[in-house]
Amino acid sequence: MAATAKGFQQSQMAQWNRSGYFRSSGSRDVNPDLEAERQTASFSVERLTTILDGGADNTRTRRAVEAVIHSDPGFSRENQYFQSQNERYEEAVRKAVLLKEKMHQMGWTEDGPETKYCYRALGGDLAFNVHRVFKNSILALGTDEQIAKWIPLADEYHIIGTYAQTELGHGTFLRGLETTAVFDISTQEFTLNTPKISAMKWWPGDMGRSATHAVVFAQLYIKGKCYGLHAFILQIRSLRDHSPAPGVIVGDIGPKMNFEHIDNGYLMLQNINIPRENMLSRFSQVLPDGTYVKRGSDQINYLTMIVTRVQMLWNEVIPMLLKACTIAIRYSAVRRQSKLNPGDPEAKILEYQTQQQKLLPLLATAYAFHFMNAYVNEFYNKGYTEIKQGNFDSLPELHALTSGLKAIITDYCTGGAEVCLRACGGHGYSALSGLPFLYTKLPASCTYEGENTVLFLQTARFLVKCLATVHSGQPIPPSAAYLSSVDSGKCQAWTKMDFLKPDIYAEAYRHRATRLLGNAATKLQTLVQSGAEQYEAWNKCTVQLVQAAKAHCYYIVVKNFIDTVEKLRNEAEIQKIVKHLCDLFALHGIFSNTGDFLHDGYMSGDQMDMVTASYLDLLAVIRNDAVPLVDAFDFTDENLNSALGSYDGHVYQRLYEWAQKSPTNQQVSQAYASYLKPLFQSALSKL
Amino acid sequence: MAATAKGFQQSQMAQWNRSGYFRSSGSRDVNPDLEAERQTASFSVERLTTILDGGADNTRTRRAVEAVIHSDPGFSRENQYFQSQNERYEEAVRKAVLLKEKMHQMGWTEDGPETKYCYRALGGDLAFNVHRVFKNSILALGTDEQIAKWIPLADEYHIIGTYAQTELGHGTFLRGLETTAVFDISTQEFTLNTPKISAMKWWPGDMGRSATHAVVFAQLYIKGKCYGLHAFILQIRSLRDHSPAPGVIVGDIGPKMNFEHIDNGYLMLQNINIPRENMLSRFSQVLPDGTYVKRGSDQINYLTMIVTRVQMLWNEVIPMLLKACTIAIRYSAVRRQSKLNPGDPEAKILEYQTQQQKLLPLLATAYAFHFMNAYVNEFYNKGYTEIKQGNFDSLPELHALTSGLKAIITDYCTGGAEVCLRACGGHGYSALSGLPFLYTKLPASCTYEGENTVLFLQTARFLVKCLATVHSGQPIPPSAAYLSSVDSGKCQAWTKMDFLKPDIYAEAYRHRATRLLGNAATKLQTLVQSGAEQYEAWNKCTVQLVQAAKAHCYYIVVKNFIDTVEKLRNEAEIQKIVKHLCDLFALHGIFSNTGDFLHDGYMSGDQMDMVTASYLDLLAVIRNDAVPLVDAFDFTDENLNSALGSYDGHVYQRLYEWAQKSPTNQQVSQAYASYLKPLFQSALSKL
Repeated sequence: MAATAKGFQQSQMAQWNRSGYFRSSGSRDVNPDLEAERQTASFSVERLTTILDGGADNTRTRRAVEAVIHSDPGFSRENQYFQSQNERYEEAVRKAVLLKEKMHQMGWTEDGPETKYCYRALGGDLAFNVHRVFKNSILALGTDEQIAKWIPLADEYHIIGTYAQTELGHGTFLRGLETTAVFDISTQEFTLNTPKISAMKWWPGDMGRSATHAVVFAQLYIKGKCYGLHAFILQIRSLRDHSPAPGVIVGDIGPKMNFEHIDNGYLMLQNINIPRENMLSRFSQVLPDGTYVKRGSDQINYLTMIVTRVQMLWNEVIPMLLKACTIAIRYSAVRRQSKLNPGDPEAKILEYQTQQQKLLPLLATAYAFHFMNAYVNEFYNKGYTEIKQGNFDSLPELHALTSGLKAIITDYCTGGAEVCLRACGGHGYSALSGLPFLYTKLPASCTYEGENTVLFLQTARFLVKCLATVHSGQPIPPSAAYLSSVDSGKCQAWTKMDFLKPDIYAEAYRHRATRLLGNAATKLQTLVQSGAEQYEAWNKCTVQLVQAAKAHCYYIVVKNFIDTVEKLRNEAEIQKIVKHLCDLFALHGIFSNTGDFLHDGYMSGDQMDMVTASYLDLLAVIRNDAVPLVDAFDFTDENLNSALGSYDGHVYQRLYEWAQKSPTNQQVSQAYASYLKPLFQSALSKL
Repeated sequence: MAATAKGFQQSQMAQWNRSGYFRSSGSRDVNPDLEAERQTASFSVERLTTILDGGADNTRTRRAVEAVIHSDPGFSRENQYFQSQNERYEEAVRKAVLLKEKMHQMGWTEDGPETKYCYRALGGDLAFNVHRVFKNSILALGTDEQIAKWIPLADEYHIIGTYAQTELGHGTFLRGLETTAVFDISTQEFTLNTPKISAMKWWPGDMGRSATHAVVFAQLYIKGKCYGLHAFILQIRSLRDHSPAPGVIVGDIGPKMNFEHIDNGYLMLQNINIPRENMLSRFSQVLPDGTYVKRGSDQINYLTMIVTRVQMLWNEVIPMLLKACTIAIRYSAVRRQSKLNPGDPEAKILEYQTQQQKLLPLLATAYAFHFMNAYVNEFYNKGYTEIKQGNFDSLPELHALTSGLKAIITDYCTGGAEVCLRACGGHGYSALSGLPFLYTKLPASCTYEGENTVLFLQTARFLVKCLATVHSGQPIPPSAAYLSSVDSGKCQAWTKMDFLKPDIYAEAYRHRATRLLGNAATKLQTLVQSGAEQYEAWNKCTVQLVQAAKAHCYYIVVKNFIDTVEKLRNEAEIQKIVKHLCDLFALHGIFSNTGDFLHDGYMSGDQMDMVTASYLDLLAVIRNDAVPLVDAFDFTDENLNSALGSYDGHVYQRLYEWAQKSPTNQQVSQAYASYLKPLFQSALSKL
C-alpha cells in the first residue's frame, strides 16, 4: 500500500505538472499581478537604483560581485533555514575560508570596493567577524612591532582571533570588568586570571569553537596598584591540535536567538603567564622595572567604536529593513484576500488602507535611513581628518550623533521587521518567507555595540550640555545648533496641503525636539536646586531625557531627508516620488506621536486632523509605486532567500517546492514507530 | 597536549568548585539581592497567588499537578533549547502519549480541573492540539451517529485527526476556499479535490507527519450548484503503515518561527471518494437523491470560534507575558551594572528609571489581562446559556468583545515579550534565558484564530452599529452602553493626585473611545453622503476605525481593572498594591498616547504633565514590590525553564551549567579538521 501510494504520488505530480497545476521550474514568467505593478511605475527603477548605490559604477561593481558569488554553489544559502546550530557554524567557517580564496582569485582586496558587496551578496552568514575586530584592535592599540608580528598571520587565517571584552557580569559598564593582569617584575610576565564566575569572558564571537588567540581586556595591576583596563594578546588553543592551552577553559555558550552561525564563547583563565610584549602598547606600556608609561592620547580609540557602529548600521541593520519591506510589499501585491466590493474579484491586500498603513511608512523609513548614510559619512570623514590632526573638538558631537542614530535606527528596524512579518499573515511565520530570520536577527542590534537606552542617554547628556552652552551664549555644535533658534510657538499650517511643505514639518520636529529637551533639562535643574543629588536627579529624568534624545534624532533624520530631496533637483520623476516618501516619513512620525506636537498648543486638534488627512492621502499615492520602490533596492532572489519575496512573485509554488527540501519530509519519524503505530493498530478493526 | 589540557580543566574545575567559584549544585541558597526584595514585600505573596488562581482549592490542585508532572523525568524540558525541529516534534508526540497515560493513571479526566494545569506545567510543547480541534468540530458539527463512531477512537489516539481548513491561498477569507466536494448520486459519494495549487491545504497542525484522518472544509456541489463550505471526514494515511491514502499527497510545510514541535502540514486531494455519511451533518445534510437539507441554525458554531479564542488567551498567551515579566524582573533585581552614585557599589538595574519604565507597566498589563478573565468568562457563560435557549441576541456583542480583546491582548503580549527580552541586555538573547522562546512564539497569536487587524475591524463594525442605535434612541448592548452617556468635555483633575482617582482616568478613557469612534463614524458618513461607495468609504476609514476599536478595548480593560480593585475591599494590603497596578496601567496608557487625550482639549498640557508626574511616581512605588508581584504568579523553575528567571536568582552559575549541555560543546567541529587545521599548521613555525 505504501508503494502504491508512493507510485500514485509520483504519477500524480507528473500529471499535475503537465496540467499546469505547478509552473515548470525553468519558467521565467512573472506573476501578472506583480508585472502590472511594474508597468505603471512613475519613475525609472534603474535610475533610482544607481542613486541608492551612490552612482552607476557602484551598481556595476555590486552586480559583478553578486554574479560571481551567486554562481558559485559553494555560497548557496539554499539549505540555510533547515540547518542546526552546528551546521550553520560549520557552513559559516567553510564559507569564510572559501571567500578568502575567492577574493585572492578575483584580486579583490579587503579594503577594495568589492568587499562590502560580498557581504551583501552572502547575506552575512560568515564566520570570523570578531576575528576582524581582533585585527582592528591590534591595528589600533598595538605597536608597529606587534602589528608586524600578528597581522600577517591573522590576515591569512593562520591564526583566528577573538575579542574578549564582555564578561558574564559586565557588558555596558566596562570599568567594572573583573579579569586581572598582574605584572611580575621577576619573570617579566603578566599573569591573567578570571577570578570570579562573573569575570568569565562570555559572548565573544569566534571564541566558542574556532579561535586560537584572543585580545583579552583585563585590569592591569603593577605592584598592587590598578591602572585600569588594558588589552593583552593570548593564545587560547593549540595550533597543533586545537586543544585548550594550559590554564584555559574555553567553550561555546550554546543556543541563541539567531546568530547560530557564530560560535559565541566563554573563557576562564587561571594563572596564565604571558610575556611583557603581549600587552598592546601603542598608548601605554609597562617597562621592565614596572614603570607604567602613558603615550599620547588614546581618545582616537573612540573612533574605532564609532566607525564600528556606523558600519554596522549600513552594512547589516538597514539592509535588513530594506529586505523585509521588499518581501512584504511584493507579497502584498500578489496575495489576494477578501473583497473590497462584493461584486469584484478578491483584492490584493496592498489595496487595504490598513495594509498600506503598516508597510508604506516603513518603506519611507527605509529610504530615510538609507539616505542618512551620506550625511553621517561626510560628518565622520570631517571629524576623522580633524582628529588625525590632533583636534578632538568634534569627537563629542560625532559620538552623540552616531550613538543616537544607532539607537533610533536599530529600534525602528527591529520594529519594522515585526510589522513586515505580521503583515504577511500566516505565511510570514514560515521560515521560508525569510522574515523570521530578519525578525530574530535584528533585536540584538539594539544591544550590541551599545545598549540603546544607554546610547540615547549619552546623546541626551550631550544635548543638555549644548543647551547650557546656548544659555551661556557660546557657539554650539552644528547638529544641535537649532536649539538656539527661536520659533513662533505655533504651527503655521492652514490647510492639509500646507503639511506637504518641508518647512512646515521640519519646523514642527524642531519645535518638538527643543521643547522636550528644554522640559527635561528644566526638571533636572529644578530637582538639583531643590536639594537632590545630581545622580539621583539625573535618574529621575531619564525617561524624559530618552524622549528628548529620540526627538532630536528624528529631527536630524527628517532634516536630512529634506536635504536629500532638494539635491535631486535634476531628477524630476525621482525627486517627485522621493519627496512623497519624505512627506510620508515626516507625517507618519507626527501622526504616531500627536501628543508631542499638541502638548503646548504648537499644533491644534484641527491641524492634527489635517496631518491625518494628508498622511492618509499619501498612503494611496505611494501605494501605486510601492513595488517599483522596493525593486529599486535591487536585491537578488538569492540575497532575499524568501519564498514570498522573489522577483517573479510565484509564492505558492515556491513555498511548496522549498518545503519538499525540509528534513522533516525526509526523516522517518521515530515517534510513529514507537508511540503511534501500536495505537493505530487498535483502530484497524473498527474502520 | 590535548590530554594535559583536559586534565587541567578537570582538576581546575574541581579546585574551583571547592573554592566557591561555583555554587555546589545541591545548594538551596537564594541570591541575597533577590532575598532582600522578598523581605520587604508589602503584602502576602501566598494570598495574592490564591486570588490569582481564583481560590485556594485551585492553587492546591495546580501545585499537586505540577508536582506530579515535574517529578516525572519523561516530561523534562531540560533539552528543549538544544533540539532540532525533528527532535521537538518527536518529543511532543512522546509527551502527548505519556500525558494520556499519566492522566489515566491519576484519574484525571479531560474536562477535569487538572487538565489545564497539566498544560501549564508542561509549557505547552505537546503534539495533538489540532487533534483536539478535529474532535471539537465533530462534536459541534456531527450527528450523534458520527460522534459515536469517531470520538471514542479519537479519545484514545487510535486515530489522530487534523482540521484542514486553511489553504495556501486562503486564510482569513473562508468563503474563498477552493477545495471542492462534489456529490455523485449514482455512487452516493462525495469526490474531493484541491483543484489548484492555491487550494492545497496548508498549515493544519498534526497533519504534516502524524494524522491519519482529517476534517476537510470544502465547497459542496450538488448537481452543479454550490452550497458553500461544509466539513467532511477523510482518512489521509493508512492505519496499518502510515503511508498516504490513495489520491492523497501529504507532507510537512517545513521550518517555522518557533512551533517546531508541531507538524504543520500540506494536503493535496485528487478525486478522493468518500461515502455520504462522511459529511458532518448536524446542521445540513445531503439526502440520497441529492436534496440539500438545512436543519436549524448553525449560528451556535460561532460559539466554538469564540471559546477557542478565549481559551487561547488565558491558557497560552497571557501566561507567556507573565513568564516574560517574571524572568526580566527577577533578573533586573540581581543584575548589577554601572553606578547611580559614583561612590556606591554598582546598582541593580531595576533601580534605573528607564528599566522601571520598560518592565513595570508591563507587569501592570499582565495583571490587567489576567483579571479580564473573570469578566469574559461571566460574559461568555451568560451568552452561552441564552444561546442554548435559542436566543442569539448577545452573539454579536460576545463576538465583538472577544475579537477586540483577542487582538489587543495578543498585540500587547507580543510587544511585551520583546521589551522583556531587550531589558535583559545581552543575556536576554541567549536561548537559555527562555525569552527568545517567548519572543518567537507570541507573534503567531496575532494571526491565528483571527488576524488582529481584521478582528479590530469586526469590533469597529459592531461599535459603528451601536452608535447608530444610540442616535436612534434604541437600547444598546451593555459593553457599548457608555457610548450614550454624556461627558463634561473637560478632564476634572486639578492636581497630580487627582490622576490616582479611578473615576478620573476611567472617564478619560471613556471620552477617548467615544470621540475616536464618533470621528471615524462621521468620516464614514460624510464620505458616503458625498457619493463614495460604501465599501470604498469603509476602506478609507479603516485606519481610524482600528484606532477606535483599540480605544474601546482599552477602556473595557481599564474599567474591569477598577472593578477588580473594588472587589478586593476585604484584602487591604493586596487591594493597595493592586490599586497601584491599576493606576499604573491606566496612567501608562495615557502617557503613551497623550495625543488622543489632548486632541480636542479634553486634557490640557498641564494636566498631561500631572499624568507624567504621577506615572513616574508610581514606577518608584511599584518597584519596591516588583519581585513579590511576579513571585505571586507562582511559576515553578521547570515551568519558566530560564537561566535568568529561576527563583534562586543564581543566573551566572546557571548560564554556565546549562551551556555545558549544548551539543555545540559535545560535537567535534568538522570545519576545524577540513578547513582550519591546515591553515593553523602554517603558523606553527612562526609562533
